[in-house]
Amino acid sequence: MSFTADTLLLFGATGDLAKRMLLPSLCALDADKLLPETLRIVGTARSPMSDAEYRNFARAALEKYLPAERRGGMADFLNRLHYQPNDVTHPEGFAKLAEQVGDSRHRLAIFLSTAPSLFEVTIEGLERAGLGGEGVRIGLEKPLGLDLASSREINDAVAKCFPETRIFRIDHYLGKETVQNLLALRFANVFFEPLWNATHIGHVQITVAETVGLEDRAEFYDHTGALRDMLQNHILQLLSLVAMEPPASYDPTAVRDEKVKVLRALRPVRDGESVTGQYRGGAIGGAIVPGYDDELKRDSGTETFVALKAHIDNWRWQGVPFYLRTGKRMHERVTEIVVQFRNVPHSIFGNARMKPNRLVIGIQPEENITLSLMAKVPGLDRDGIALRPVPLDIAMPDAFTGAHRRIAYERLLLDLIEGDQTLFVRRDEVEAQWAWIDGIRAQWKSEALEPKPYASGSWGPSAAIALAERDGVSWHE
Amino acid sequence: MSFTADTLLLFGATGDLAKRMLLPSLCALDADKLLPETLRIVGTARSPMSDAEYRNFARAALEKYLPAERRGGMADFLNRLHYQPNDVTHPEGFAKLAEQVGDSRHRLAIFLSTAPSLFEVTIEGLERAGLGGEGVRIGLEKPLGLDLASSREINDAVAKCFPETRIFRIDHYLGKETVQNLLALRFANVFFEPLWNATHIGHVQITVAETVGLEDRAEFYDHTGALRDMLQNHILQLLSLVAMEPPASYDPTAVRDEKVKVLRALRPVRDGESVTGQYRGGAIGGAIVPGYDDELKRDSGTETFVALKAHIDNWRWQGVPFYLRTGKRMHERVTEIVVQFRNVPHSIFGNARMKPNRLVIGIQPEENITLSLMAKVPGLDRDGIALRPVPLDIAMPDAFTGAHRRIAYERLLLDLIEGDQTLFVRRDEVEAQWAWIDGIRAQWKSEALEPKPYASGSWGPSAAIALAERDGVSWHE
Repeated sequence: MSFTADTLLLFGATGDLAKRMLLPSLCALDADKLLPETLRIVGTARSPMSDAEYRNFARAALEKYLPAERRGGMADFLNRLHYQPNDVTHPEGFAKLAEQVGDSRHRLAIFLSTAPSLFEVTIEGLERAGLGGEGVRIGLEKPLGLDLASSREINDAVAKCFPETRIFRIDHYLGKETVQNLLALRFANVFFEPLWNATHIGHVQITVAETVGLEDRAEFYDHTGALRDMLQNHILQLLSLVAMEPPASYDPTAVRDEKVKVLRALRPVRDGESVTGQYRGGAIGGAIVPGYDDELKRDSGTETFVALKAHIDNWRWQGVPFYLRTGKRMHERVTEIVVQFRNVPHSIFGNARMKPNRLVIGIQPEENITLSLMAKVPGLDRDGIALRPVPLDIAMPDAFTGAHRRIAYERLLLDLIEGDQTLFVRRDEVEAQWAWIDGIRAQWKSEALEPKPYASGSWGPSAAIALAERDGVSWHE
Repeated sequence: MSFTADTLLLFGATGDLAKRMLLPSLCALDADKLLPETLRIVGTARSPMSDAEYRNFARAALEKYLPAERRGGMADFLNRLHYQPNDVTHPEGFAKLAEQVGDSRHRLAIFLSTAPSLFEVTIEGLERAGLGGEGVRIGLEKPLGLDLASSREINDAVAKCFPETRIFRIDHYLGKETVQNLLALRFANVFFEPLWNATHIGHVQITVAETVGLEDRAEFYDHTGALRDMLQNHILQLLSLVAMEPPASYDPTAVRDEKVKVLRALRPVRDGESVTGQYRGGAIGGAIVPGYDDELKRDSGTETFVALKAHIDNWRWQGVPFYLRTGKRMHERVTEIVVQFRNVPHSIFGNARMKPNRLVIGIQPEENITLSLMAKVPGLDRDGIALRPVPLDIAMPDAFTGAHRRIAYERLLLDLIEGDQTLFVRRDEVEAQWAWIDGIRAQWKSEALEPKPYASGSWGPSAAIALAERDGVSWHE
């Protein structure tokens, strides 16, 4: 179904994601003249609000969350906005929504930024109101379930009305510039692919570290934990992009076929290959912060940190560990992928200090890609040749500094409006992710693994350090 | 013979090379406290001169050719200098030289910067005077012959007194920082070696372009020509460093064993694989310059330009052409090696502009190493992913800018004084170079190849462009 949407229908239009990300992204796209000229944006949520009130709501969000220089003609953008109150649990409200959408039902993009427990009734309502036809595509925000079974339920509910080709599951990490640049590097250069395998790569690290604690979603988080909140989706998506075979083309089917192959080749995690933790009080950036149990106001067995040693059982990656970790209240906020190449097989330079090559893909807080090579230190080498690592900045050379950094959702919302599924997660991917994650949880149960306490502001429990160090590997910090 | 020389005995001490390169290099080394504290430098040549006069001569040369900030304590350096007049064709003079050298004959480094026609008598004189013992090593400047036969004669004459382990044949290109850095890159990174072969490299270009014409050596040059003056030595040395197999260690034997294997594997150049030229009048940098025949004041069949398509018949390089060229009165002064990688085997990015990766090793006028990779252009890629080449400067990142550029002879003179042969040319290398070059000259004779005229300030005859373009290759400019 190749069409550009006339209307974007936004469920959860007054929610946190809408305020912080979706409205700012749409306004920024509009400022850059990237939205279709006639695109209407219809927000819907339970609160009663008029168009004018919603525009005020949106203006306040934009002024708070979008830098002034990216707002452009904000008034024009606000004029695109409309609002239709609707309680999705009351089927009759959908008729009003359909009226508001009008003829756009033949070129409609819907974005569900609501609790997944509401997906089923929402989709039933949409279908009954005639908003589920061939000219409608639907974007889904995470979480898509808490395990394989609940994920299947959600996917089945959506599939009743929408075929896979019209479902856009969001993992906003895929909207990041450097994540896409990783694919450009891997597949637009003869330089990486021949080295991108177990012969030349020693290990890979993926870290998603947050400094925040529970924020305002304590109950949800305590039901979920770090493994399911961050590792199941973001980290596994990054892993699949790093590890996938070259797709035949950069299109949704080819790319996702390769990603799902990686996810299916993940070896079940075994005894001793995972470490979990839960933060205690500590200090981050000079501020004292409370422990998880203090924030939650009760004891809990939920992990706020997880580190895994993963393996991909295929030809390319045999013997290459993927060290994965994510946690809250960590020392600093950082998301990065480290591809650590092997040592040269033999040093012809005797005792010269030699470090193995390394590619670091920084995703947060800064997006950057650094390749570290060894070069000769200029000089006369009186005591044998002197070498040192030279960090080469690939992603953002001077030539590119004109371009501004975009919010990941800008890319994804535009793809939803225009109908490009490449950067969205396919059902088989989600399910392969859950299948592996469920296996880990079962393993934890059989090990009776309990989260180890770690101080806020640290890099997690010392057992996580040991997990890598046992293999002679240090986490990149 | 591992020893550090007490005395450096310099034949040709009043010559052009001594003035421009050798004295400045020695003074700069001294300023950096790199010369052995007690090292004496004895100059010798035909002109009668006292120590004081030679020191004045040296001071004038240093003030002209060495930047003030590198001269350091020039007075201290000048005090190291002594002078002993000697006509090498009169054997009796060597006794005086020996007296001047004194006990240093047991730790003596000699540098012959004279016409090779004088090498034989010089060496006989040295030997008779007792200056050819185990504690003496000898450095030889090019040209070492004009063909294999004359080169053998010279080498035989030197070998009568000096074993190969005490002979230091200079090719000053080997003293260049980036030439050594090329070896560091190749062998201190896992990143290059797996790609450094016919599977991943499409071709290699080596260019040594001069803007000067005949200068003051018209007769010598007209006897020699570009092939023998530049290609036989400098270009073939660069080629052997680019193409050699990894040596087991960075030592004189291991490195030169690998270099000579490359030189011996050079395929004889065939009909149509070489182009020669001779410059005519033209303009370089806005100045009108005369043609070769005008400078020489007669017609000549000597080439001032040569371009070759060379092949190395071994496993690593089968099917990879090495395009070599050198010429006088070219568009600009540049020495560089271009390693052109192959295209990616298949573009997953459809019509995105993709350029093959390239490593450019700049040797003159600037020393630098640039690796060109493709990266994603930041942005939303509305018309498919956009790619562009990102040039990465490997040799001289900001971190290194503290180090000053050195004269290539600094490194080589210090190695001669200290006895490290790694960056000097072994007899078998010189002879393998000549064997291949002699084959080319024989081929030219059988083809009755005549140099094609080219305008000064151009990149040589158009046939040289065609030589590469026929293979779909453009010279890097």
